[in-house]
Amino acid sequence: MEVEFLERIDKNDYGDLITESEHWLIFLAPDQKNLGTCVVALKRPEKELSGLNHDEWSEFFKVVVQMESAIKMAFNATMFNWGSLMNASYLQYPPDPHLHWHFIPRYREPVEFRGRIFKDPCFGKSTINIQEKLHLPSSEREDLMAHILKFLEL
Amino acid sequence: MEVEFLERIDKNDYGDLITESEHWLIFLAPDQKNLGTCVVALKRPEKELSGLNHDEWSEFFKVVVQMESAIKMAFNATMFNWGSLMNASYLQYPPDPHLHWHFIPRYREPVEFRGRIFKDPCFGKSTINIQEKLHLPSSEREDLMAHILKFLEL
Repeated sequence: MEVEFLERIDKNDYGDLITESEHWLIFLAPDQKNLGTCVVALKRPEKELSGLNHDEWSEFFKVVVQMESAIKMAFNATMFNWGSLMNASYLQYPPDPHLHWHFIPRYREPVEFRGRIFKDPCFGKSTINIQEKLHLPSSEREDLMAHILKFLEL
Repeated sequence: MEVEFLERIDKNDYGDLITESEHWLIFLAPDQKNLGTCVVALKRPEKELSGLNHDEWSEFFKVVVQMESAIKMAFNATMFNWGSLMNASYLQYPPDPHLHWHFIPRYREPVEFRGRIFKDPCFGKSTINIQEKLHLPSSEREDLMAHILKFLEL
């Protein structure tokens, strides 16, 4: 990837890179109030879903399957929200969107990881209803990324 | 499709059927505050994305491309939000989710259709921030569906 593109990705604050596939980067999102929340970002500049090529679309399905499976095994998640919005990019003009997905595991029951209890604060509703964010210490984020990686087979 | 499945789809209140592809049903969503908001629902029972088969996934991409193109041509939409959440199904127990996508066109500028002005009330942010819904009279919904259908080539 070009340095310029990597700098732009970095500016977007997707979080910490867990792993990557041929076409996609998988980040642990900054906000972990829903344990295992990730961002999946395309490895090239593109602004909208319909601009993907067939290989990218096809490989994204493998990412979906792997991530849902991994987070179920790792944390017994109940279900998952997937969204590709890109709204915030359009608050500036000209907009500079970069295609990415939000992956938000949802939990009916609280889940414990490394001694911390995570509760899904609005299970059954959009997480956008909750303003508070949970930023974990970097040591906990590293443990979390290593744990997720054990279950991912990309 | 089985009668039982169709009754369940009907209960989910996805809106009015515009058209269908081999695996997907495309509905004009009940709330039209964002003009052209649709629901794309799978034509068989399935609860999560990773349960799709490759044909369904692959065909969904054609739907994405067609819908983004159609709504750009029909209403000059600026960009689009796509989300597969299924949250509300989990407010009941046992949950009974059915796989579907929300397709929400977003507009930087107001757009006029049949004399009515549609403004995107929170462009650049999630539509979940806006509680109010816009339910159009059925004659306007019919005009809208016919107009969208002119640009869809599924």
